[in-house]
Amino acid sequence: MSLITALRRLIFGAPIATSRAHHERLPKLFGLPVFASDNISSVAYATEEILLMLSIAGAAALGYVTWIALAIVVLVLVVITSYTRTIYAYPQGGGDYRVTSDNLGSKVGRITGAALLIDYTLTVAVSVSAGVLAIVSAFPNLQPYTVHMALAAVAAIAMMNLRGMRESGLVFALPTYAFVGLMLALIVAGLMRAGTHPEPVPVPVEAMKQATAPLTLWLILRAFAAGCAALTGIEAIADSVPAFRKPAAYNASRTLWMLGAILVVIFLGMSWMARHYGVVAMDVDQPGYRTVVAQLAATMFGEGGMFYVIQISTMLILVLAANTAFADFPRLCSFIAGDSFLPRQLSNLGDRLVFQNGIILLAVASGALIFVFGADVHRLIPLYALGVFTAFTLGQAGMVVRQVRLKARWWGPVISFIGMVATGTVWVVILTTKFMIGAWIIVVGLMVLLAVFWGIRRHYRYLTRALTPVLGEKPGPVDTTVLLLVPRIHRGILTAIAYARTLSKDIRAVYVNINPDSVEEVKREWDQFAGDIPLVVLEAPYRSLVDPILEYIDEAVGERENHMLTVILPQAVPKHWWQGLLHNNAALPLKLALASRKNVVVTNVRYFLE
Amino acid sequence: MSLITALRRLIFGAPIATSRAHHERLPKLFGLPVFASDNISSVAYATEEILLMLSIAGAAALGYVTWIALAIVVLVLVVITSYTRTIYAYPQGGGDYRVTSDNLGSKVGRITGAALLIDYTLTVAVSVSAGVLAIVSAFPNLQPYTVHMALAAVAAIAMMNLRGMRESGLVFALPTYAFVGLMLALIVAGLMRAGTHPEPVPVPVEAMKQATAPLTLWLILRAFAAGCAALTGIEAIADSVPAFRKPAAYNASRTLWMLGAILVVIFLGMSWMARHYGVVAMDVDQPGYRTVVAQLAATMFGEGGMFYVIQISTMLILVLAANTAFADFPRLCSFIAGDSFLPRQLSNLGDRLVFQNGIILLAVASGALIFVFGADVHRLIPLYALGVFTAFTLGQAGMVVRQVRLKARWWGPVISFIGMVATGTVWVVILTTKFMIGAWIIVVGLMVLLAVFWGIRRHYRYLTRALTPVLGEKPGPVDTTVLLLVPRIHRGILTAIAYARTLSKDIRAVYVNINPDSVEEVKREWDQFAGDIPLVVLEAPYRSLVDPILEYIDEAVGERENHMLTVILPQAVPKHWWQGLLHNNAALPLKLALASRKNVVVTNVRYFLE
Repeated sequence: MSLITALRRLIFGAPIATSRAHHERLPKLFGLPVFASDNISSVAYATEEILLMLSIAGAAALGYVTWIALAIVVLVLVVITSYTRTIYAYPQGGGDYRVTSDNLGSKVGRITGAALLIDYTLTVAVSVSAGVLAIVSAFPNLQPYTVHMALAAVAAIAMMNLRGMRESGLVFALPTYAFVGLMLALIVAGLMRAGTHPEPVPVPVEAMKQATAPLTLWLILRAFAAGCAALTGIEAIADSVPAFRKPAAYNASRTLWMLGAILVVIFLGMSWMARHYGVVAMDVDQPGYRTVVAQLAATMFGEGGMFYVIQISTMLILVLAANTAFADFPRLCSFIAGDSFLPRQLSNLGDRLVFQNGIILLAVASGALIFVFGADVHRLIPLYALGVFTAFTLGQAGMVVRQVRLKARWWGPVISFIGMVATGTVWVVILTTKFMIGAWIIVVGLMVLLAVFWGIRRHYRYLTRALTPVLGEKPGPVDTTVLLLVPRIHRGILTAIAYARTLSKDIRAVYVNINPDSVEEVKREWDQFAGDIPLVVLEAPYRSLVDPILEYIDEAVGERENHMLTVILPQAVPKHWWQGLLHNNAALPLKLALASRKNVVVTNVRYFLE
Repeated sequence: MSLITALRRLIFGAPIATSRAHHERLPKLFGLPVFASDNISSVAYATEEILLMLSIAGAAALGYVTWIALAIVVLVLVVITSYTRTIYAYPQGGGDYRVTSDNLGSKVGRITGAALLIDYTLTVAVSVSAGVLAIVSAFPNLQPYTVHMALAAVAAIAMMNLRGMRESGLVFALPTYAFVGLMLALIVAGLMRAGTHPEPVPVPVEAMKQATAPLTLWLILRAFAAGCAALTGIEAIADSVPAFRKPAAYNASRTLWMLGAILVVIFLGMSWMARHYGVVAMDVDQPGYRTVVAQLAATMFGEGGMFYVIQISTMLILVLAANTAFADFPRLCSFIAGDSFLPRQLSNLGDRLVFQNGIILLAVASGALIFVFGADVHRLIPLYALGVFTAFTLGQAGMVVRQVRLKARWWGPVISFIGMVATGTVWVVILTTKFMIGAWIIVVGLMVLLAVFWGIRRHYRYLTRALTPVLGEKPGPVDTTVLLLVPRIHRGILTAIAYARTLSKDIRAVYVNINPDSVEEVKREWDQFAGDIPLVVLEAPYRSLVDPILEYIDEAVGERENHMLTVILPQAVPKHWWQGLLHNNAALPLKLALASRKNVVVTNVRYFLE
């Protein structure tokens, strides 16, 4: 076992046999945390983003947070109702890429796929950044290392996924239920204190920035669009119906409703509390930055153990959310690659049964986003949610078409239609309100991705055409001339000479004359060595080995029809790699130069020094 | 002509034929500037370094500068007298590495060679840094870019040398004579003003740092050692006697004396003026830094045109000095490589007739020094001169031995002996005074270099032993089995099949079964394609191509004695390189894995997609 293999095994574990591929079926109790962490975790930042947007219009505007939260909750319920249809229609799973490709054609499918790929990347960037902010809220000394910690977290999650972490229900269940429990405790504490001190706390004016804009409908729409980040991840259950115990569709849809109920309670609770207790959204680089959740936790429980437990649990569920994207993104890549729109390597199952190339791609892309945006959730949010709402709208549209075509009962397409119109309207709101502050990047990225899809499929189609065997086509007869490049006459080329003799009757030794003084000696020695093989001496007036050899090869290839040349390069293999630095290495430039020559095959015959 | 070739030509010029290699013979008038720039340029910093050292003991100590300069002048005369002996003894040139290797054995020769290599590297670093300081003195705004400018200068000089700048006498003559003329003008102006204002100007105490140490003999010796940088480059003429017109030895020795005379006059003049006009050596990062020469020029001529002309001319001669090292270092490397102590590539003449690898090595090494020491001459000086004094002493010792052995007249060895004792004594002074403040780096570097020399020679000796043909040894008979790796059945492998047929009767097609569903189809298609070649299907339970192939190869190699395997990897060559990213590339990991297998030859047979 080589050093590299040993290192690989240590980090990623031993290979797993294909026969061990199977999918554990989850009961609802464990299915909920596995698929809900992505969605539920968004309460850690959604309220904060609404508040931050409203605060532009000053303290008075903050009152709208509860109304906006209510509007988002209504949207959640519509989307969940609509996705129940998808679950029953596609019990084999597959998600919106499949739904749209099947029912609205490949073009729409590609748009959905590209939008989802972008959104998964943002899920990682946003979740990890928000998770790090939860930690920074608890340990302010770590603030300067925000970006470093976020990048390290992405690397760690990617590493675990490359190892092929099985979707272990328990690993997800603990942090998810802990987070849900803690959030509920926070809300109960808030309600109880509100009961004893019935007056709402006004926002301290000195803590707020001055209002810089009037409160307009536009601003309220922007705040709503920012809060729509709460809906991301809601589609995860519909993607993976077969992961549930049978009856899978029934269990999956029940889980989806449970998820919705949890989301609604916590999100509404947080928004009400933020309003009631006069919490203010801060800028990330403000000294003593704390997330809204952290401020609420500190107000309710003081800065003791409970506060730290909430921050750490918030971080954990956000890391799980990022981890969900690390499961979804590579799988979606493999679907798209299977349709020839992405490089085939993305559908290769690695030796740990994971789509390793997709995992690496996601880690690099989300790491770049975190780096460029300084792990700042506030700056990432404008890019977020546009992708997933594209998928929502198109997926629902696909479901409408499908149900009409299959003549489903009247309320089936109607539910999907309502879902489509609702998410489509929100899509327009998100696009228009966020376009100038960042969403244009997503639009451009989507176009680029679609162009890449198109170019890749074109190449694969061309490849299929070019490589399809023509029936009855047999390879023509060829013969080969062997050119044996002789650097100096020494024992190391004995193997090369012997090997050359086995390949062809037409062998020529080629010697490039750089030092005119030694030619005669080389000729004499060659006669003793292998006198039956003719020695061709090439002149090198410019002391370059490559040019004279290329010239001779071009001439020799043209000697006959269907003629191939085998160029043998004897190569010394030293015991240690650094000794290779002491050898003149003519092989590499020659190989590069010959790479574009047809009917020339370059062969290294190695001799081992030991 | 490929893009790379075109780019190479643009930057480095077209190749030059070996037949055009010749050496222009120089008359004294042009020989002087070619070989003197290195040495004479040192007056730009030598006085300054003495002053800087003395200033530790306060203003009163500065008076010693003229005495120290006088001592150095005496040393210069002794060394020149002694080197005249070397010139006559080695009219073919070759320098101290040759002299010591011939007369004191290879070990001493290696020490000399290593010392000189280190010193040439320092010559580049010190000269370029000092040249940049001359510019910074004239244009203080450039001070923050000192290191950038120095690195750019090294890159530019290296580039010119890679192009193969001929040693054009004129290119050297103009700046060198201009610098000499300007320095003489400066001294004359200083003398004239001193005549009219006979009182020496005391150093303004507020400009000086406070004395931090008493004036001891130790301090004077340290100042002397710092000033010995003035002697570097004095050996250049003895290295290159054949470059002079005949009688070469006579002309070379005359030129050496002229060089000595110029150095003595300017160095003494500068030192006297610095003392007389109360000039103070400054720290490089002090605001408004000016070299001593710049201060003198400003005092004599004001800050007008003459001041700028002097600064630019100083910079030019210092760049020429660095350029001299770029001629000497690669040549010395090629000598040492010729004796098998350095990699052979260092004695390859490139297509522009220059030792390109040596040039690149020097540029990297001196660039690293400049970067690490922040282009600060004051910090580089403690490392300097130790190497060249090692070479002086050992070279003179070699001359003593040689002349005694050849029974030269009595005064010959005596002169060399006096030179040896003088330079040897100075060597001890430099080593002891500079050891703690930087010279230890040189000692360590020298040891490392000697160890490298030793290791390299050991490898080459071993290589010669291992590769010397045993008389009568003929390559044994071998036969080859061809393994044709079949990725999928398609038209692209037709060429590979045809090629395989020309190589051997024993051909086996090998298919690795990653997707069990498609095996039967592949078998059927193969029968249509090349039914006469047996198809070996290997199982891949871990979805890795490499492991099953390796296993099969290891088995197949062992089937017979003297049996070789030719593994043919069909490889698609797309039109554009980026299309290659869309192909599964199994060839590279397989090649890497097979690199250490004996009796296995790996061959790419390419098919071109177009």
